[in-house]
Amino acid sequence: MALAPAQPTELLENDRVRVTRWDFPPNSETGHHVHDYDYVVVPVVPGRLVLVDDQGKRNEAELTVGGAYNRDAGTSHNVINEGDAPVAFVEVELKEPRAKG
Amino acid sequence: MALAPAQPTELLENDRVRVTRWDFPPNSETGHHVHDYDYVVVPVVPGRLVLVDDQGKRNEAELTVGGAYNRDAGTSHNVINEGDAPVAFVEVELKEPRAKG
Repeated sequence: MALAPAQPTELLENDRVRVTRWDFPPNSETGHHVHDYDYVVVPVVPGRLVLVDDQGKRNEAELTVGGAYNRDAGTSHNVINEGDAPVAFVEVELKEPRAKG
Repeated sequence: MALAPAQPTELLENDRVRVTRWDFPPNSETGHHVHDYDYVVVPVVPGRLVLVDDQGKRNEAELTVGGAYNRDAGTSHNVINEGDAPVAFVEVELKEPRAKG
């Protein structure tokens, strides 16, 4: 069964950040992608997502509202909602390169 | 009636960001403060907050889950939950100075 695409909604963007809400209907995925920027994820609709890395390794992430996590630029994966309820998070990307040193 | 203090919970911090969840029980406030860093707010429990600036001017902010907003370093205010239900947001502070130019 083909997965539906996750839906990005840009909330705001300026020189420093790009903030996007990602909505994952049931049985949806982002598709494989590589993150250009360091980023922070803030869950807003709780649930479980599956992250599949470039080697096909699966990691399950239980998203809870009120939490947050961060990842580095270069993170490369697909993000899938295999469940039967929607899941959503707000992603804050740091557009500026990391300070040297 | 004295207001209770809003409750900060640090979720993560690294060289680039400090991420804090702010929980506002009913009739609570942060107290006056000045933001050291540019920041993004991601609501996680919806509701209305009152922002009181240094001149005492009141602004009401309706926080909706799935949205986000940003403010600059130097923002100076008190944030109050005057309602009878909890409100909460996750604050992502950008610790690095803005890129020049």
